[in-house]
Amino acid sequence: MKSRPRVLQVGLGPIGRDTARRAAARGYEVVGAVDIDPSMGGQSLSEILETDIPGEVVGSVEDALEAFAMDAALVTTVSDLDKVVPDCETLLQGGVAVISTCEEMAYPLHTQPDATGRLDEAAKAGGVACLGTGINPGFVLDLLPALVSAPLDRVETVRAWRVVDAGTRRGPLQKKVGAGLTEEEFHARVKGGSFGHRGFMESLHMVCDAFDVDPRGATTFIRPVICDADIDTGVVKVKAGQVAGIHQGAEDREGKVVLDLKMYVGAKEPGDRVELAGDPPIKVQVEGGYMGDVATCAIALNAVPAVLRAAPGFRTMLDLPALPAPRG
Amino acid sequence: MKSRPRVLQVGLGPIGRDTARRAAARGYEVVGAVDIDPSMGGQSLSEILETDIPGEVVGSVEDALEAFAMDAALVTTVSDLDKVVPDCETLLQGGVAVISTCEEMAYPLHTQPDATGRLDEAAKAGGVACLGTGINPGFVLDLLPALVSAPLDRVETVRAWRVVDAGTRRGPLQKKVGAGLTEEEFHARVKGGSFGHRGFMESLHMVCDAFDVDPRGATTFIRPVICDADIDTGVVKVKAGQVAGIHQGAEDREGKVVLDLKMYVGAKEPGDRVELAGDPPIKVQVEGGYMGDVATCAIALNAVPAVLRAAPGFRTMLDLPALPAPRG
Repeated sequence: MKSRPRVLQVGLGPIGRDTARRAAARGYEVVGAVDIDPSMGGQSLSEILETDIPGEVVGSVEDALEAFAMDAALVTTVSDLDKVVPDCETLLQGGVAVISTCEEMAYPLHTQPDATGRLDEAAKAGGVACLGTGINPGFVLDLLPALVSAPLDRVETVRAWRVVDAGTRRGPLQKKVGAGLTEEEFHARVKGGSFGHRGFMESLHMVCDAFDVDPRGATTFIRPVICDADIDTGVVKVKAGQVAGIHQGAEDREGKVVLDLKMYVGAKEPGDRVELAGDPPIKVQVEGGYMGDVATCAIALNAVPAVLRAAPGFRTMLDLPALPAPRG
Repeated sequence: MKSRPRVLQVGLGPIGRDTARRAAARGYEVVGAVDIDPSMGGQSLSEILETDIPGEVVGSVEDALEAFAMDAALVTTVSDLDKVVPDCETLLQGGVAVISTCEEMAYPLHTQPDATGRLDEAAKAGGVACLGTGINPGFVLDLLPALVSAPLDRVETVRAWRVVDAGTRRGPLQKKVGAGLTEEEFHARVKGGSFGHRGFMESLHMVCDAFDVDPRGATTFIRPVICDADIDTGVVKVKAGQVAGIHQGAEDREGKVVLDLKMYVGAKEPGDRVELAGDPPIKVQVEGGYMGDVATCAIALNAVPAVLRAAPGFRTMLDLPALPAPRG
């Protein structure tokens, strides 16, 4: 690596800690971190992460801007775009590029144009770029179909599926998908809002824009996957007839783009799949699928050099000046 | 499509004719064509291609520069870089961007640095970009491994395979891979040079550069695939014990990158496959594989907008400002 980006880690949940560790392991200079948990304030990253990363943990991005000199911030806090915009604006206006795994930031151009505009303005004011990324949304169900279409003369329809065996993932994810709920509880949670995989409509919009499909009138669904035999993952026990996880789908009005996600414990054939009808048609299968957590940290880190080179403003995975890439 | 690129088709063999037809079908303005076959001179493309493309066919790129106003030339003539450089230099110096399916142009930085330098100089002199591309080399065994690595934190080894059933491809390809030869004839052809799939070392070099692997000391092999039962493709009859096609491989000195290509009649499991060992590891399969001829025309055409936006000079598929993409 020619340069050594100086990065700030914002958010020290499981994904944030892993991102900081991996950033240091690949030679990025982790200057420090932000977490709102007051018990972390003033501690060093080396204590919290049990590594030799020297930076300190501060309680706000304002404090971080005062304390550290940095090129980019890795923001791995929440899924709601409006909750993450204020911190991102502060960082961007301060001249710090932002790479976030906030699901709704992956492609908010159609869902939240105002928030997108605020990020774009702040980024331009600071002369830096802002990107939302991750494995899903950010890659498997949205960028990947675009990437594998490079040698196609014409694309008629796009179909992408992701099946995740939640039982092999960390505990919070197993609970997040509703494993162990009754059907009634599942539907009540759906009604309560903010349940299920986030960023799904954002993925659909990215695909629509990549393939010139009108995203207006696109629809989504969410329903339970019901367990057909008792299963004990070590984290949760699910009985036959209870909810094993979620099944979500999204498609445009004309059915040109259809995305489908199943995340449930005991999933039988986990994997990622993209089928493009066109000339030539293609069918691409990722055996077992991309490992979600590692891949999300990695794609955010891999994006740092491209984001630092990008034109100031709000960017997406479709218009980075280079594809995120690991090195040897 | 916002703009309508004006393109010149250089070479009216099967790939060139198909490229010109597909260029017109997607709304590019095909201003004319070049072919050295004197019988085509002065004819219109509409006569030769049996379509309504209006442009005329001239005998040289010099004549084309005088006759037509154009943004880019699609050069689909020969596989040898040194044979195609003079025409490309003329076009580039004349301010016409070049996109070529010349296999050796896909990544000649290490194999032919002098020719690469000449193209780079001519392109910079003309203020335009020059690109070699295609499905193989250009995508399946070189760019695709890089694309699917975007969400990986670390890559240890790269393995890519392509198996093509030559019996389903056009006649010249079936003969090109040696179908119907005896083993002795096959080895004599290999000794004679210029036999087999071209651009294989170029693919290896692209992968090495994408993953920071030292390409020095890389090796290749070529050997026959022997037919195990009589087969008649309609173009060629191959008896058991005769050559069904070729098997080629390339790898770097340390075995970090291994590429493998089989093209033979009666291939049992045609397909493209990429396996990356790393964190996370991934295995990607393209069922049946990308259709070679269509995909080569398409990726060249899809690259036109990115090449027109690229910085002047010799570019590769690794450093285009945007990935080639079809539209809906």
